[in-house]
Amino acid sequence: MTSKLKSIEYGKARVRVAKIERHEDRHEFREFTVAVRLAGPFENCYLTGDNSMVVPTDTMKNTVYAIAAQTSLAPAERYAIKLGQHFLDTHAHVTGVDMDIVEHRWDRLDPFTFEQGQSRRLAFVQMTRDGVAVQAGIDNLVVLKTTKSSFAGYLKDKYTTLKETSDRILGTSVRAVWNYDSTDLDFEATMASCRKIMIDVFTAHDSLAVQQTIYAMGDAVLQAHPQIGEIRITLPNKHYLPVNLEVLGLENKNEIFMPTDEPHGLIEACITR
Amino acid sequence: MTSKLKSIEYGKARVRVAKIERHEDRHEFREFTVAVRLAGPFENCYLTGDNSMVVPTDTMKNTVYAIAAQTSLAPAERYAIKLGQHFLDTHAHVTGVDMDIVEHRWDRLDPFTFEQGQSRRLAFVQMTRDGVAVQAGIDNLVVLKTTKSSFAGYLKDKYTTLKETSDRILGTSVRAVWNYDSTDLDFEATMASCRKIMIDVFTAHDSLAVQQTIYAMGDAVLQAHPQIGEIRITLPNKHYLPVNLEVLGLENKNEIFMPTDEPHGLIEACITR
Amino acid sequence: MTSKLKSIEYGKARVRVAKIERHEDRHEFREFTVAVRLAGPFENCYLTGDNSMVVPTDTMKNTVYAIAAQTSLAPAERYAIKLGQHFLDTHAHVTGVDMDIVEHRWDRLDPFTFEQGQSRRLAFVQMTRDGVAVQAGIDNLVVLKTTKSSFAGYLKDKYTTLKETSDRILGTSVRAVWNYDSTDLDFEATMASCRKIMIDVFTAHDSLAVQQTIYAMGDAVLQAHPQIGEIRITLPNKHYLPVNLEVLGLENKNEIFMPTDEPHGLIEACITR
Amino acid sequence: MTSKLKSIEYGKARVRVAKIERHEDRHEFREFTVAVRLAGPFENCYLTGDNSMVVPTDTMKNTVYAIAAQTSLAPAERYAIKLGQHFLDTHAHVTGVDMDIVEHRWDRLDPFTFEQGQSRRLAFVQMTRDGVAVQAGIDNLVVLKTTKSSFAGYLKDKYTTLKETSDRILGTSVRAVWNYDSTDLDFEATMASCRKIMIDVFTAHDSLAVQQTIYAMGDAVLQAHPQIGEIRITLPNKHYLPVNLEVLGLENKNEIFMPTDEPHGLIEACITR
Repeated sequence: MTSKLKSIEYGKARVRVAKIERHEDRHEFREFTVAVRLAGPFENCYLTGDNSMVVPTDTMKNTVYAIAAQTSLAPAERYAIKLGQHFLDTHAHVTGVDMDIVEHRWDRLDPFTFEQGQSRRLAFVQMTRDGVAVQAGIDNLVVLKTTKSSFAGYLKDKYTTLKETSDRILGTSVRAVWNYDSTDLDFEATMASCRKIMIDVFTAHDSLAVQQTIYAMGDAVLQAHPQIGEIRITLPNKHYLPVNLEVLGLENKNEIFMPTDEPHGLIEACITR
Repeated sequence: MTSKLKSIEYGKARVRVAKIERHEDRHEFREFTVAVRLAGPFENCYLTGDNSMVVPTDTMKNTVYAIAAQTSLAPAERYAIKLGQHFLDTHAHVTGVDMDIVEHRWDRLDPFTFEQGQSRRLAFVQMTRDGVAVQAGIDNLVVLKTTKSSFAGYLKDKYTTLKETSDRILGTSVRAVWNYDSTDLDFEATMASCRKIMIDVFTAHDSLAVQQTIYAMGDAVLQAHPQIGEIRITLPNKHYLPVNLEVLGLENKNEIFMPTDEPHGLIEACITR
Repeated sequence: MTSKLKSIEYGKARVRVAKIERHEDRHEFREFTVAVRLAGPFENCYLTGDNSMVVPTDTMKNTVYAIAAQTSLAPAERYAIKLGQHFLDTHAHVTGVDMDIVEHRWDRLDPFTFEQGQSRRLAFVQMTRDGVAVQAGIDNLVVLKTTKSSFAGYLKDKYTTLKETSDRILGTSVRAVWNYDSTDLDFEATMASCRKIMIDVFTAHDSLAVQQTIYAMGDAVLQAHPQIGEIRITLPNKHYLPVNLEVLGLENKNEIFMPTDEPHGLIEACITR
Repeated sequence: MTSKLKSIEYGKARVRVAKIERHEDRHEFREFTVAVRLAGPFENCYLTGDNSMVVPTDTMKNTVYAIAAQTSLAPAERYAIKLGQHFLDTHAHVTGVDMDIVEHRWDRLDPFTFEQGQSRRLAFVQMTRDGVAVQAGIDNLVVLKTTKSSFAGYLKDKYTTLKETSDRILGTSVRAVWNYDSTDLDFEATMASCRKIMIDVFTAHDSLAVQQTIYAMGDAVLQAHPQIGEIRITLPNKHYLPVNLEVLGLENKNEIFMPTDEPHGLIEACITR
């Protein structure tokens, strides 16, 4: 046994929890999928199977429910902070807690009924005994525009066959994650605002490249929200390929497309102040 | 070679097509995943590899695009009828054409931008030289209510452990498929109406069982739309299990739930006049 | 309330169960995903919410485990028969029980260790008070051959662009379901034999069309197993498209392919005696 | 426009390529899903939409096929190095190329026929003008042992309900990625050896915790292969929960389990010399 541990991760993933908050005239409903990881002196478990310092991942799961019973799930960021604080308070040897929350978006249909949307809200909270770092985000926001997107003037080499276009479909599934400089803010309102800003820029932007759209979206978020230090946006270019109708004796007036999932362009940037 | 062919199926599945219809002030955008199957005297292909009667499935794919270029994709039912008619007109030996269309719902954000929803619209068209049968439907409409759902008074046997409840979460993913008695109707308006009726009944219904909710939803659709002969509704009971917090020293005031995908109740009915 | 119930389905899906059978020198391990549906006079549940005849689907789930504790999971067919018999014996008003079992294939690595394969074994058992019908099958058996597959001599129309080929890749995911004329047979040995026969025919067959390969596979199974009355085989044609390298200044000597999942050919037949 | 670019990523993901190598007596067949990303001075594309330095991701896709036509796909690592070298040679402004390859495992059934397995081989190659870094790995290797796994002696707190066990099922889906100190080695033989070592240790190890099994697996790989500098292994603990049969009036002699996908334990380590 001469090998060393360079790094370790241990925790519980895909813990699902939902909570109803009952008001006279309406119910609030939240649903999360949570992952929790603990940092601390757990090396001996790897090296010798000594579990004496190990909080079982089953206990982490139970704790997700126990804290949910004692605090609101809204906003996810504050729930996560309470969850992390519990582990730091309970176990003196735990040095850090990481929590990843995927919130399944339920849109209200009436005071007691909800429809699930496709997009997800994200919250990532990292706590140590020195402080807390909070990130929030959006995932799987599938949007598409049928105009104001071109791609031309690019570099050609001997394997380039792509035709330049001044008018293509731009379809993507937005993933954006941003960090907060403090926790003294309205997480829900900021989330809603960031989502709206990104959709508005996506819609309005005269895109010369997906890259340019990413920057424009991120820049707008940073302009609007001084408490956000940086934002990472990923826009897979989910191609809608114009179908070659000439071989069928027909003309494609830039109207008929074949949607594809693979391959796709992978375009990402982290934008900061 | 003594075995016989009892039945055969051949066609192309998962053909993806999208179309922009450009108007001055807005674009219309539709996206389908199409399956096409042909019926006819194709037995020799199976028995001897004689392909002389076989329309290649690649040609079916091309035809999906060719017809899309020559007609609107809206509504899916009329597009499918034109697609089927093409095969019947072109190939005298083809006796029938089946088309299944899954329409990916794109909700308008602005005149040229769309967000993809989670639910799908369905159209099933079966054409022969004698006529056409049209079915429409909705799939993956994920809804949930936090009240007005109970389950009690059921039969107990020695393996029953379920507790009766007068107030549970009812979460499901609606799939509904109905048939039309004629093609002389507004498919889009009827689809929107059926969707609204089913959601309204789901919301308002005081549910004693998922089965009862299915019947109420189907009955309401049939009452409202005389041109619909029958409707099949499937409501998987996607359980939100109350978490046992007593073992954690806490009380669950019917607030904290564990969402699950498996197992789930499978509840379905075909409702007719 | 004037609508009628044409048909109803109710049951529990995706019940997962595994069992270890411990022998001195080795363990046997089986894992199933089970669905159970009951037939009987359950209409009032739909019509009025009267649950008095309803065996809760939660009880069905419990029963899957209870019967697993009292009998072997091997073979799946016999387990299913015992499960169905339990419901018929326990509930006089139940007229039929349908069970669908997907068996996750675990291949032995040593006496106590297993690796999961990609293919699945299927068992479908339908019981009434008059008798039992048993089907068995294989699913998700992904195979591919790099020779002995051609496709030519097919019908051309104005939308045909496919090139004839005397040597293409044939890749597919086999699904086959067959019925047994009796239950007096060795289900495990027959399953293994059918699997081997189908793979052997797939391998050896000089295929002029996927359709022809299906018939050859099914015919061989029927020849070998008189207790099988019919077999339904589905072979999606998962295309490996030759890449056009000419536009890149290169030649494709039928060597470089783009694997695709969509669209795919959908080829199926039910073969009988 | 005051925001800055902290980092950028651009490339093509999910490019699928397969190649047949034809020998007299057998064919070799390989299938990859490839991602390519380029590093270089691409900031202006984000900032101003200036595409003049941008190699289109469509060209990257074409290049995957072009290089496949000119070299073997085996081993993936050498193919990736040639692919990366092409971009560095062709485009003077490109400073780095990252390639991720997922190889779909096809097991030979006969000289010309293959069955797809569930596990995947991984290759990650990062090239700059200063050198190349190669990582290899295995993913989705789903294994399970029915003995020699316990979990006891762990820390209890007020939310701990897990029972200690001296004999549980250990089921997991192995993901392991290791780095090579040089490229002067037999990648295929090393891959096969690492796979065998990890399975052998998983099988033989008397596991006191999943963590301990990870370390043992990684340590064994490092002992056997001096050219491997470090290895990261992830073993999700895919729980097989003993079913409570007492409430059904039965005894569970550690035989009947409910397999679950969520939640699962997430156990990982990076092991180094």
